[in-house]
Amino acid sequence: MDEKMARGKVSIVGCGLIGSYWGTLFASAGYNVCLYDISAEKIEAAKKSIEKKLRLLEIDDLLRGPGTASEQFKNVSSTLDLAECLAGSIYCQESTTESEQSKKEIFSKMDELASDDLILASSTSTIPASHFTERLKRRSQCLVSHPINPPLFIPLVEIVPSPWTSEDVVMRTCAVMRTIGQSPVRLQREIVGFALNRIQFAIIAEAWRLVKEGVLSPEDVDIVMKDGLGPRYAFYGPLGVMHMNANGIEDYMNRFAGGMVNVLRDLGPTPTFEESEARTMVTEALNAEMPVSRMAEFVADRERRLAELCKLKKRFDAEAQNGL
Amino acid sequence: MDEKMARGKVSIVGCGLIGSYWGTLFASAGYNVCLYDISAEKIEAAKKSIEKKLRLLEIDDLLRGPGTASEQFKNVSSTLDLAECLAGSIYCQESTTESEQSKKEIFSKMDELASDDLILASSTSTIPASHFTERLKRRSQCLVSHPINPPLFIPLVEIVPSPWTSEDVVMRTCAVMRTIGQSPVRLQREIVGFALNRIQFAIIAEAWRLVKEGVLSPEDVDIVMKDGLGPRYAFYGPLGVMHMNANGIEDYMNRFAGGMVNVLRDLGPTPTFEESEARTMVTEALNAEMPVSRMAEFVADRERRLAELCKLKKRFDAEAQNGL
Repeated sequence: MDEKMARGKVSIVGCGLIGSYWGTLFASAGYNVCLYDISAEKIEAAKKSIEKKLRLLEIDDLLRGPGTASEQFKNVSSTLDLAECLAGSIYCQESTTESEQSKKEIFSKMDELASDDLILASSTSTIPASHFTERLKRRSQCLVSHPINPPLFIPLVEIVPSPWTSEDVVMRTCAVMRTIGQSPVRLQREIVGFALNRIQFAIIAEAWRLVKEGVLSPEDVDIVMKDGLGPRYAFYGPLGVMHMNANGIEDYMNRFAGGMVNVLRDLGPTPTFEESEARTMVTEALNAEMPVSRMAEFVADRERRLAELCKLKKRFDAEAQNGL
Repeated sequence: MDEKMARGKVSIVGCGLIGSYWGTLFASAGYNVCLYDISAEKIEAAKKSIEKKLRLLEIDDLLRGPGTASEQFKNVSSTLDLAECLAGSIYCQESTTESEQSKKEIFSKMDELASDDLILASSTSTIPASHFTERLKRRSQCLVSHPINPPLFIPLVEIVPSPWTSEDVVMRTCAVMRTIGQSPVRLQREIVGFALNRIQFAIIAEAWRLVKEGVLSPEDVDIVMKDGLGPRYAFYGPLGVMHMNANGIEDYMNRFAGGMVNVLRDLGPTPTFEESEARTMVTEALNAEMPVSRMAEFVADRERRLAELCKLKKRFDAEAQNGL
């Protein structure tokens, strides 16, 4: 059986920016993708975006499965009927409005229409599945599958089951993510901010305090990351960096744990982000560096940079697998 | 006048790993580098390392100035006499043992030997210059110039003046760092952990708590960074990422500041890093992934990855300067 055909049907519910990224990823891996939205215009825009992004992935040799971009795009269909979208599907990725009420409504509808085998995954970045699936009869089939922006070039997906999500659904979701070349990480339980944003916000909090306390300018805080910590983090996590910055992590801990605790105890209180002086400085610096009027250009440039980094990491991964 | 000759003489005091990295950077930019150590063996090892690393930079087209690696290496000399090392030098980078006592001793000696124009910079990652220069007659010429590992491929240098460092010395140090292709960031005052380690330790603290609380495995915590946050941070700082993940940073703040505060308030207390279960899990995971016995190999592999990222960033910087 043809590997591509074996991939089956996937439902994309909600065709905004995130939905169209998901559609691109699934089509690129050889799935039959069915787009759903209440707006025909949004569906058309998503289709155009998917077609264009598949071609860009093809140029960068970053398609996730066999076939050409135009062959893969032929597997993208759409409907304004949610039942039709979900019929015969093995996996549904929901990316509608980010509000608890909106998630409750769409999941309640999907609950009525889903088959026993259909996974119902939400792209929400902030709302645990338990907040909008508790009363559903298919609540064991629901969970969060949170992508990172921009998902075509950032492989992480946070898989966050609710207390009643079945283990089988969690495992199958991780497996599906791997088939599209994404990198799923499974949280053992629901936690505010999931994992990525907890770490990201801890970084932002200290960056903000350094500006607020007058230690660094906003520009310099960003330089500390992009020219200092960031290059290592493109390839290694914080634990890996510790391990390699000493003779292993035990050595690191023996030498630096006390110093780390001293520094951590010196960090200031949680910022409100309403400190007006810091807010003005940060806003002015960023608007000067990247004027909002030209944002589309900066976002496109970011995708090009991240695509090149993906190609680089892919090359190193291939070398590592060949035992180099 | 030949640009290379104009660069003048630089003193490298202490020829361990960090000293030899500095020697490489300065030689690569066309400076006359004079190495000093109390151990002739260390000096010889540093010279070998500098020669080898200049050749590797040459292959990657990452030399910082004109001339070939072998021409640049000809400008590297050495001495066991500190006075000879400092004579006629414009900038001294000290990288001896990381202890307050050791810094006091070497800075006290350099204080006696330095000319009026010589900058005395320490590579210390943890000890503010005020702790070891207060009683020196040339204390206004002293400051911290903290490199990040591995400095050949991580451009950030934290410039941390003491309360009595002269403004002229701070400015000249930043200028010197730019001549060797490094990216200086100037802290407005001494602060525990400087800037980079405050941010790094905030990351490590949350990574550690996620493992300790059983939310993520150590492997998955590292995946959250390297496949999630890290790729963006290779090119953008935390403020830049906020700006681009919304329609500018004001929009980001209006939409997400409240959510950030909620997440930040949920972060647990400062870890001691002595929590035995977490420590065992983290140690076992890292040792399995990168056995300490093969550390040299992993460190060399990291340099190759970071060198490729440097080349990539250099290409994008050149494009940006050409107005693309």
